[in-house]
Amino acid sequence: MKDYIKVDEWKIIEEGFDPHHHKISESIFSLGNGRMGQRANFEETYSGDTLLGNYVAGVYYPDKTRVGWWKNGYPEYFAKVLNSANWTIIDILLDGEQLDLAKCEVIDFRRELNMKEGYLKRSFKAKTALGKEVAVEACRFCSMVDDETAAINYTITPLNFSGTITITPAIDGDVMNKDSNYDEKFWDEVTKATQPDGGYIVMRTKKTGFEVATGMKFSIVQNGTVIQPKAEAIQKEKYVASKVELQAQQGQSISIVKYVANLSSQNHKPEGLIVQLTSTLNRIAAKGFDTMLAEQAANWAEKWKHNDIIIEGDASAQQAIRFNIFQLNQTYTGEDDRLNIGPKGFTGEKYGGSTYWDTEAYCVPFYLSTADQKVTKNLLLYRYKQLGKAIENAASLGFKNGAALYPMVTMDGTECHNEWEITFEEIHRNGAIAYAIFNYVRYTADDAYLANYGLEVLIAIARFWSQRVSWSQAKEQYVMLGVTGPNEYENNVNNNWYTSKLAAWCMEYTIEVIEKIKTSDKAKYEALVNKINFDEAIETSRYKHIIEKMYYGYDEKQGVFLQQDGYLDKEQILVKDLPAVDRPLNQKWSWDRILRSCYIKQADVLQGIYFFEDQYDIDTIRRNFDFYEPRTVHESSLSPCVHAILAAKLGDEARAYEFYLRTARLDLDDYNNDTEDGCHITSMAGTWMAVVEGFGGMRVRDGKLSFQPFLPEKWASFSFNVGFRGALLNIKVSKDGVQIKNLSGNEASVLVHGKEQVVKANDELLVEA
Amino acid sequence: MKDYIKVDEWKIIEEGFDPHHHKISESIFSLGNGRMGQRANFEETYSGDTLLGNYVAGVYYPDKTRVGWWKNGYPEYFAKVLNSANWTIIDILLDGEQLDLAKCEVIDFRRELNMKEGYLKRSFKAKTALGKEVAVEACRFCSMVDDETAAINYTITPLNFSGTITITPAIDGDVMNKDSNYDEKFWDEVTKATQPDGGYIVMRTKKTGFEVATGMKFSIVQNGTVIQPKAEAIQKEKYVASKVELQAQQGQSISIVKYVANLSSQNHKPEGLIVQLTSTLNRIAAKGFDTMLAEQAANWAEKWKHNDIIIEGDASAQQAIRFNIFQLNQTYTGEDDRLNIGPKGFTGEKYGGSTYWDTEAYCVPFYLSTADQKVTKNLLLYRYKQLGKAIENAASLGFKNGAALYPMVTMDGTECHNEWEITFEEIHRNGAIAYAIFNYVRYTADDAYLANYGLEVLIAIARFWSQRVSWSQAKEQYVMLGVTGPNEYENNVNNNWYTSKLAAWCMEYTIEVIEKIKTSDKAKYEALVNKINFDEAIETSRYKHIIEKMYYGYDEKQGVFLQQDGYLDKEQILVKDLPAVDRPLNQKWSWDRILRSCYIKQADVLQGIYFFEDQYDIDTIRRNFDFYEPRTVHESSLSPCVHAILAAKLGDEARAYEFYLRTARLDLDDYNNDTEDGCHITSMAGTWMAVVEGFGGMRVRDGKLSFQPFLPEKWASFSFNVGFRGALLNIKVSKDGVQIKNLSGNEASVLVHGKEQVVKANDELLVEA
Repeated sequence: MKDYIKVDEWKIIEEGFDPHHHKISESIFSLGNGRMGQRANFEETYSGDTLLGNYVAGVYYPDKTRVGWWKNGYPEYFAKVLNSANWTIIDILLDGEQLDLAKCEVIDFRRELNMKEGYLKRSFKAKTALGKEVAVEACRFCSMVDDETAAINYTITPLNFSGTITITPAIDGDVMNKDSNYDEKFWDEVTKATQPDGGYIVMRTKKTGFEVATGMKFSIVQNGTVIQPKAEAIQKEKYVASKVELQAQQGQSISIVKYVANLSSQNHKPEGLIVQLTSTLNRIAAKGFDTMLAEQAANWAEKWKHNDIIIEGDASAQQAIRFNIFQLNQTYTGEDDRLNIGPKGFTGEKYGGSTYWDTEAYCVPFYLSTADQKVTKNLLLYRYKQLGKAIENAASLGFKNGAALYPMVTMDGTECHNEWEITFEEIHRNGAIAYAIFNYVRYTADDAYLANYGLEVLIAIARFWSQRVSWSQAKEQYVMLGVTGPNEYENNVNNNWYTSKLAAWCMEYTIEVIEKIKTSDKAKYEALVNKINFDEAIETSRYKHIIEKMYYGYDEKQGVFLQQDGYLDKEQILVKDLPAVDRPLNQKWSWDRILRSCYIKQADVLQGIYFFEDQYDIDTIRRNFDFYEPRTVHESSLSPCVHAILAAKLGDEARAYEFYLRTARLDLDDYNNDTEDGCHITSMAGTWMAVVEGFGGMRVRDGKLSFQPFLPEKWASFSFNVGFRGALLNIKVSKDGVQIKNLSGNEASVLVHGKEQVVKANDELLVEA
Repeated sequence: MKDYIKVDEWKIIEEGFDPHHHKISESIFSLGNGRMGQRANFEETYSGDTLLGNYVAGVYYPDKTRVGWWKNGYPEYFAKVLNSANWTIIDILLDGEQLDLAKCEVIDFRRELNMKEGYLKRSFKAKTALGKEVAVEACRFCSMVDDETAAINYTITPLNFSGTITITPAIDGDVMNKDSNYDEKFWDEVTKATQPDGGYIVMRTKKTGFEVATGMKFSIVQNGTVIQPKAEAIQKEKYVASKVELQAQQGQSISIVKYVANLSSQNHKPEGLIVQLTSTLNRIAAKGFDTMLAEQAANWAEKWKHNDIIIEGDASAQQAIRFNIFQLNQTYTGEDDRLNIGPKGFTGEKYGGSTYWDTEAYCVPFYLSTADQKVTKNLLLYRYKQLGKAIENAASLGFKNGAALYPMVTMDGTECHNEWEITFEEIHRNGAIAYAIFNYVRYTADDAYLANYGLEVLIAIARFWSQRVSWSQAKEQYVMLGVTGPNEYENNVNNNWYTSKLAAWCMEYTIEVIEKIKTSDKAKYEALVNKINFDEAIETSRYKHIIEKMYYGYDEKQGVFLQQDGYLDKEQILVKDLPAVDRPLNQKWSWDRILRSCYIKQADVLQGIYFFEDQYDIDTIRRNFDFYEPRTVHESSLSPCVHAILAAKLGDEARAYEFYLRTARLDLDDYNNDTEDGCHITSMAGTWMAVVEGFGGMRVRDGKLSFQPFLPEKWASFSFNVGFRGALLNIKVSKDGVQIKNLSGNEASVLVHGKEQVVKANDELLVEA
């Protein structure tokens, strides 16, 4: 754990330069706009330890799989988000000496991520080895308004000399992924060009053939005046730059504004890329940096209006929750159903930037409440469009009749993961995808989605489960053999309660939706039946038989659902009795020892109880929570939020708050010592859930929002917005009670502590404490 | 399955050249002498598909591990046997046109492995693209007498032309392993030299620093006369050759004899390698090819006298069993306790040439009966010497107090494997190592071995098991969680019966040996106690508690030991009811499907019953056999032999024979479609076991050999030799009964069908049928 980030309600601030923190900061200060993003690499050359990262959403490369021992069924490729052309570069020479913070004395270094307005600012003074002193101020952002563009304003002032300052803005396409399996480079150059005031380069990915055109246009202001200096064009392999030599006067600033555009063949015809690029660059350069930045601020202001969570009385918690919301918005804007939310977003390469069940289980609730419903719908459509590949994937594993197994990790629908215990066995992901459909419809009442898309996915998933169970002659019940639950510290177990529960629920829900659509839209239903060769009578009767005869482990003595067969044979030493030196287990213990132990990586039975809370009485929830919580090590970033929500549900406010803290500042304080690889983007949605569903106690019940809030002791108040079926509500929880503002033109009815409250359009009311 | 190998009792014969069979034949016709070995690559250039292979025993390279996802505890390196300098090369030009069977019309091709005398012979006629016709005869061997040497006699006759024949004998050190994880080359050149009649090259392995000097000396006979032609020395990187141009007359033969020496720094001081190499080459060249070959034949004759199994009435079975015995003898001679038996011997790279539990479970019985007891002792000492590393290995996985876990795969004692379910969980190997000590001592009565070495290993293993079990509060018994049994088609299971049984037995046997040594050699025992800090009272009482309270799964209904928890929850469809298209499962099914199924890769419960046969009544054995056999797919080459032995024990002679067939011609007929990677050397010992322990019914009971033989229906007789405590017996089973010849000077007493038979020195007797 680190704590070098300064607390501020709207900003992330680093003061003083410590190279040991640099890669962590590169992650934390990342920028993105849903379409492109980047780590907070320095503009000027930096020879110290750094992780270069520039990403273009949806542009991926199928890297050849690397495994120790091949298992039948492994995918040949692992699609990964590519490190793409680096457009940040502004190299600086001071009388020929390179400005490089790794080789300078650095004073007054400050890095600031302005979350309110969406930009990154950096300032420092540096003294070079040869004694030159300069002050630098750099500001940049990825435009939310014009999401193929970005801009940098870089100002340098010689402090103790007059002389030549050489400024070389560049675009470097000769980059590679740090996680390239065989140290291959993934890009070929297509073409490039330089002009006096800019240049561009078009790169094409190997195999996938995505083309990305990255261009720059720059202007220079010296002593307050725009100048037209002579620039020397430089072209190297996969690299374009313009070298500008300027005579600088001590104390007088030189600024370069670098306008950047980044266009992908996903969104443009390849043959039109260069024309589009040029016109885009001209457009933003004409607009100017300040206007772009003002638009950026306005755009973020609009976002915050809908998204913000305000915490009064705890600036650190305030900063943390805003950081989580900010990063989620930078990662995914919901406008393109081909895109999704990688676990690291645009902040690193790890996990390949691909889609996991995180999206459905954690991100969907966030976007449902904070964004237009089309955003979540696009996340759902992403899976709908990949149904064919999920069916192929299941077929390759021996399933039939249109059964679908969605991949554990994917970019375009094909499976990318290659650990058998995950790829083939962590199949509960299929359930989360069905649950997201359920969640979306319960939230939005968009039944048409079911008829048009959802049911087709549900039946394919139900078909999978109905084949994945097997009949145990010994038990005379259906069993679910060889699975890995959300608790990945168990592999290849039998009858993981969560997976079996979710499987049966999927079949139940599928039957329910069939009944609904058959009634509401018979024609569509029949078309679907034909399309997918669905034999309703035979197939649903098998589902029903499985639902009825599914085996669930239960321990009578403790009154708890058994995480899996044999769980109670393990040595039951609680986490609190584990020596501190053994933690985190995943760094200290060999894998087999972890597997043999009773320790739970992340909510598993409790994840199921969270999903199906209404089915269990409070005592059942309490018994399971009290049993499993002390055995959970929360070594997944996705774990504490679920525990926070359940602790809140059980009235254990102190622990709910404790769990919240573990998730909220995970990256800012580098809890898990891995932020340098990138931020935990998807778990940030869990932080939001901990506040809204935990402290706010928000649920959807019978088509209504329901709140059961409590105020964490340290806070004066907290408030959040939530959009629900045409209404936009602001919920503020304070010592006075629960204040509900209806920000929309539609009347809303909600439950607060179980009592109905009607809030008129544009009105508010207070439910007193 | 292929059947291109001609049947012959003493020879392996291939007639006609089919490039599709070439890599398989390269494996089958491999040569070795325990110290070095090679695949049957052609001498002349071959541009077709080939797997180059020349190996030097004990010379390995730690290749950097390749895994998909790193797990804590994985070893960083995988030691592998190296493809080393290719000394086979004799390149041929015919008036400048290269002789290359991939580009010729090939007639009368014949390859012959003479197992009786230990050499490889090849002859063919070839017509080149330009119409040149030649006849070639090549004979080579790795000397068993002088195990750092080899020789090739290569004769070429121009059939339809007179002209220039250029002969270039060479040594090429620029080779690489096909299974190199990162396409690295593992050898650096140290030095090289050429002389008119030969040359050498010294190569050094990267990282491990083994030096191997490979030299050649050649002589040429033209038209019956040794000639001294002018040779042009050629040196390239990692390559030496001598190019000899000869004027050849149509119909007149030219022969080159290439003498080879291959010396490793394992056996010589590096600085003396070149001197030793030169003197070795001079020595063998002076001896001459024919003398060397005669010595080779004599050496093999001696081996066969002890090793041979004679089958009358079934030439195919005869050929097969001799092939198995031949390859085992080529692989390991037992003279060096630093060496061991790789699963592929010198016939391929696969499995890295490292040591597996195959050695203890399968090879030890073979060598115990067919070789001097020092051979097996050396195999045991190999593990004894690696005890320190086995303790380190266990410590790295969290075990304490001198507990040892021997590696799954090793070259020098460090673990090389990196699949968690194998590396960390297939721990039964530890038991096989203890069992081999038991087996050796029961066979040889060499109790001194226990006092000097064996007990130290046993205690370290017992310590491991005593920590590896865990106490189940639920069961109030010790359980063994998270293991992989011999049946690798189950991973991470609980309470694998075989593993638990073997673990408890290890502790029992350790206690038994402690009692024995305490009495017989108190001083040594006390020295050991001090050396390893053994607290006898506390530690053995824990062992006893575990032995007493160990949990074993048992199914009352079927009366069988349960392979593992939950085995009966699987769908119990028998192998016979599996569609043929689904076989072999490991090529047709995804890994998870295999894991969920009831199918057994290789004897697991039955392996335990085989080990501890005396503990079970015949009905118990039958019930378990009848239950597990129909569920076993025998997709490991190590499986059918155990089933053959148990089937024989149960009097099921037809099935015993059927299982025997599956193992005996595995490589000759390429049953598993993988012989091109190399032969299944260690399972060849299983074939021997199937004959001697299966058909011969041989056991050791109370210090005596016991036989319960039967004669397979198709056979007129079979006979084998077995050495036992100073006696050498020939057992011949025929329709007349069991004939026992005592070939030694010591009286022997054996049991035949339970009745004691005393055979005087150099006498024989017949136990009539």
